Amino acid sequence: MKQVSEHIPGYCYGTAEVTPSPVSLRELEELKISAGFTAEDERYLRLAGEVLADQTKQIVDHWRSGIIAGIPNLARHSRTPEGNAIPEYLAASNLRFRQWILDTCMRSYDQDWINYQEEIALRHTALKKNQTDGVRSTPQVPLQDVIAFIAVMNETIKPYLAAKSHPAEEVDKMHRAWCKSIQLQLALWLGPYMEAGKAATE
Amino acid sequence: MKQVSEHIPGYCYGTAEVTPSPVSLRELEELKISAGFTAEDERYLRLAGEVLADQTKQIVDHWRSGIIAGIPNLARHSRTPEGNAIPEYLAASNLRFRQWILDTCMRSYDQDWINYQEEIALRHTALKKNQTDGVRSTPQVPLQDVIAFIAVMNETIKPYLAAKSHPAEEVDKMHRAWCKSIQLQLALWLGPYMEAGKAATE
Repeated sequence: MKQVSEHIPGYCYGTAEVTPSPVSLRELEELKISAGFTAEDERYLRLAGEVLADQTKQIVDHWRSGIIAGIPNLARHSRTPEGNAIPEYLAASNLRFRQWILDTCMRSYDQDWINYQEEIALRHTALKKNQTDGVRSTPQVPLQDVIAFIAVMNETIKPYLAAKSHPAEEVDKMHRAWCKSIQLQLALWLGPYMEAGKAATE
Repeated sequence: MKQVSEHIPGYCYGTAEVTPSPVSLRELEELKISAGFTAEDERYLRLAGEVLADQTKQIVDHWRSGIIAGIPNLARHSRTPEGNAIPEYLAASNLRFRQWILDTCMRSYDQDWINYQEEIALRHTALKKNQTDGVRSTPQVPLQDVIAFIAVMNETIKPYLAAKSHPAEEVDKMHRAWCKSIQLQLALWLGPYMEAGKAATE
């Protein structure tokens, strides 16, 4: 599997370190049906992966420095509670962010993929945020902010999908497949957030 | 405000019947910023509203009869627990579904709008599903299924946005504004679902 860097701190896709998800492959199949995610979408995600593979740094820089850094409500999640930068945290999570783009496009959506969605979500909740990198930052990225920022990622990814001169129709199909995948992932991220919400009231 | 029908059973937008949302206008403004939802998106939603106004029946029929009816996991939420059809429930909720399309495009996103998002979400959770129509059906539409089906709505709305011969660039802008609005709404629907999740474990 293609990686954006030989060593990605905290990236443990497919290993025993990953918390197994309670979501089964059968449930994922049902979600795919509800989302209209088809074999064609899988094919266009692979194509998107080829198109995006050498652009992940540019894309994540665009999102992080170009957009998130200008939105204090979002930027704070990479900073200390006092608002100071934590460059090594940002650097590590940016590498994982870049790898997430590739994994979205290139991975088989199997049990390992489901499990890693659970892991990604947990690392954004109070149950596990900051632990991977051993940092002191906000306790949780609120899920509503993740949901909102998905709109930005979906909008801004499109020019990168078009950057290799594919016909507009193919770019549209890649983009549709991307948007559906993110929505599937969001559906999987919900469980850990619900869990974190319950833990907070116990 | 334009309505899809003079009388829409259970539709009480802007009235005292609507549960006030704990989400403030300021929080909505923050969500808009996180989603990249701008004044341009508002303008293109208005245009989308004009384009879709006489197509809401066709669109909701497409979603309900053309798609949901073929997915047992989704179709069950309009049926009795034994799987029998409840035509009057479907008819009423289809009218509200059609009106939701118009409200998405035409309403000011003010406190009434926030409150009605809360109401819409509550009516899909165990806290309030079936009550409006006094029916016996599934207790809750799981939020992950809502999230997944959003991908379908976002994909299938596009040809309807293009149906009035607007230039492709304008159709794209209407579509982008639509997708952002749905993501904003989803962010607002999360609160009631979290509440329902907590209530279920109490």
